[in-house]
Amino acid sequence: MTDNPFTGAPGREETTPGVFSEAEVGLANRNSGAFLEMLSLDVTPVGAHYLLTHFDVPLLEEGAHRVVFDGAFEAPFEMSLEEVKAAPKVTMPVTMECAGNGRTGMKPRPFSMPWSYEAVGTAEWTGTPLAPLIERAKPQAGVVDFAFEGADFGYDKGVGHAFGRSLTPEQLADLEVLLVYEMNGQPLLPQHGAPLRLIVPGWYGMASVKWLSRITAMTERYQGFQQVETYRFRQAADEPGEPVTEIKVKSLMVPPGVPDWITRKRWLSPGKVTLQGRAWSGAGVPVERVEVRIGDTWHEAEVEAPLGRYAWSGWSFEWEAEPGHYRLACRATDTNGNVQPLEAEWNLSGFANNTLHEVEVFVGD
Amino acid sequence: MTDNPFTGAPGREETTPGVFSEAEVGLANRNSGAFLEMLSLDVTPVGAHYLLTHFDVPLLEEGAHRVVFDGAFEAPFEMSLEEVKAAPKVTMPVTMECAGNGRTGMKPRPFSMPWSYEAVGTAEWTGTPLAPLIERAKPQAGVVDFAFEGADFGYDKGVGHAFGRSLTPEQLADLEVLLVYEMNGQPLLPQHGAPLRLIVPGWYGMASVKWLSRITAMTERYQGFQQVETYRFRQAADEPGEPVTEIKVKSLMVPPGVPDWITRKRWLSPGKVTLQGRAWSGAGVPVERVEVRIGDTWHEAEVEAPLGRYAWSGWSFEWEAEPGHYRLACRATDTNGNVQPLEAEWNLSGFANNTLHEVEVFVGD
Repeated sequence: MTDNPFTGAPGREETTPGVFSEAEVGLANRNSGAFLEMLSLDVTPVGAHYLLTHFDVPLLEEGAHRVVFDGAFEAPFEMSLEEVKAAPKVTMPVTMECAGNGRTGMKPRPFSMPWSYEAVGTAEWTGTPLAPLIERAKPQAGVVDFAFEGADFGYDKGVGHAFGRSLTPEQLADLEVLLVYEMNGQPLLPQHGAPLRLIVPGWYGMASVKWLSRITAMTERYQGFQQVETYRFRQAADEPGEPVTEIKVKSLMVPPGVPDWITRKRWLSPGKVTLQGRAWSGAGVPVERVEVRIGDTWHEAEVEAPLGRYAWSGWSFEWEAEPGHYRLACRATDTNGNVQPLEAEWNLSGFANNTLHEVEVFVGD
Repeated sequence: MTDNPFTGAPGREETTPGVFSEAEVGLANRNSGAFLEMLSLDVTPVGAHYLLTHFDVPLLEEGAHRVVFDGAFEAPFEMSLEEVKAAPKVTMPVTMECAGNGRTGMKPRPFSMPWSYEAVGTAEWTGTPLAPLIERAKPQAGVVDFAFEGADFGYDKGVGHAFGRSLTPEQLADLEVLLVYEMNGQPLLPQHGAPLRLIVPGWYGMASVKWLSRITAMTERYQGFQQVETYRFRQAADEPGEPVTEIKVKSLMVPPGVPDWITRKRWLSPGKVTLQGRAWSGAGVPVERVEVRIGDTWHEAEVEAPLGRYAWSGWSFEWEAEPGHYRLACRATDTNGNVQPLEAEWNLSGFANNTLHEVEVFVGD
């Protein structure tokens, strides 16, 4: 592969404000977001959960699939799907968000999948806790990383690699990481990682490796492309940057009224309107407050108990809508005092934008 | 609604070659295409079938839902879902394609959802034939149209309307139209039209009205917005145009090798490669021939029997790949002698582009 045409960063043009390149639109066609109107549902239906797929979806045979525990383990082993399913079973609602959600709201706009607000969803994931399996494999002294490798392979900036990520022993001890084979009570679909994937609750989606094939204990830091080259907060390309990890506090609103098909602006009749939506934060921290902006005034919304330790809360606010033109917005605060900022904190790859969700609404008379 | 802000055509800018507007990217984020790599599967998995949603997805309660047969019927009635399910049950594989698939390949590019190749899928739809129910409702003499109305409502060019379409009595007699409540053996998902939708096999997707609520027999031509204002082949905005109906002959290829994440260009090793894909045509006409272009030479592919009267055929071709840079393409011919054109026939809204699927491939050495 001497003259690999993918060396460098093909397709990664400088972005132009207000217009998008063919490569960006190609990514938007291939990847799919949630329907904001479905934020009224506790659990996102199958097929309406966001999907970000780096390479091709591998079509794996469940009967033939193995997950291999190898590297610096005293007792390495491999498991069939049958064996994974025979292990203790847990079902957990988890809100997952793409690290790139909100990218188009950053100025200048970083080049990649041009998400606006829609790369989030909550599913009921069923699987088995990872920690006891790691324990069974007996990590050797000096293990500093566990690497998780998927069956999906492709090129990014000229580097061919299977999608892989890692977690430290400390992170694994903190997080309730699962090996998952069901989503919303059904076998995983191919595009969600069938037959087996990782779920790292409370972290952005890149950590939840799909099509999981290999778990490697490492006595040196894992240097996988998706761990060290992407998913970092950087201001410039030559910095190592800080890793993207826990989801930041955020909220979204079900757009009220009815849409214009092209612009998605909203039209509604005056009178009582229930504004509602969802709010979440990272790694088990609950949301304690949601505010709704109408005109220049912020109002306190009612916040429901979260659906689970790692899943979103519903919120609602009764609005007596008067004729006019509004840019509604919502803003969440978590119990650690983190609040959504009014301006995105810019970074080179456009990660973790948790500024306000704004919805343009016309109330008729 | 005197000062409706959606009057006119908000967001419908002139398009610019090579770049896309925010409105176009918004549509690409909201609507979702198939994964071309899943063309290796006979049936598209739930959640990987393309979705084009004009307004918001209505979340309807199955228990409360009724489909009303009204208008110029002698014996109008309404049915619950339970009653629809008690009627004779049929399961049919149907290949559905969005009328706008391929729009970005037209020059100049018409403004709307910027599909390239991916707005197609094949599902196993389960429901009951519509014809006997129409008969039961006894259309009056002089009925010229049956109108089908969904529960989804919004604005398009300033016109508020529920999504609706119509078929003539002659069309209904020709086509095996179904009232459908299951997709791939599971209850319809909200985004696919739950709890009840129309399937008009062999026609582009706009005919298969989702969230079906009302079937009205009409003694005058149906004038619904989605029937007379959109989904027409026009050269200029002031023409009435010809209606978009049956799917045109087309084929797609599973992109061989592995992708670059951004450009989706492909990399593969030299040697034997099975090129494969799917081919289909409209309204029950089978595909009889698929050709594959490698370099400047066209080769005959093997074509399988279609999956069903209204569903695609698999095709394959064994390629002995030599190092080089290729733009592979495929081309289908149906038994009526229709063949995919080398140039798209341009029309104002960018409908029914059935030119060749091209895939850029690098074979290493």
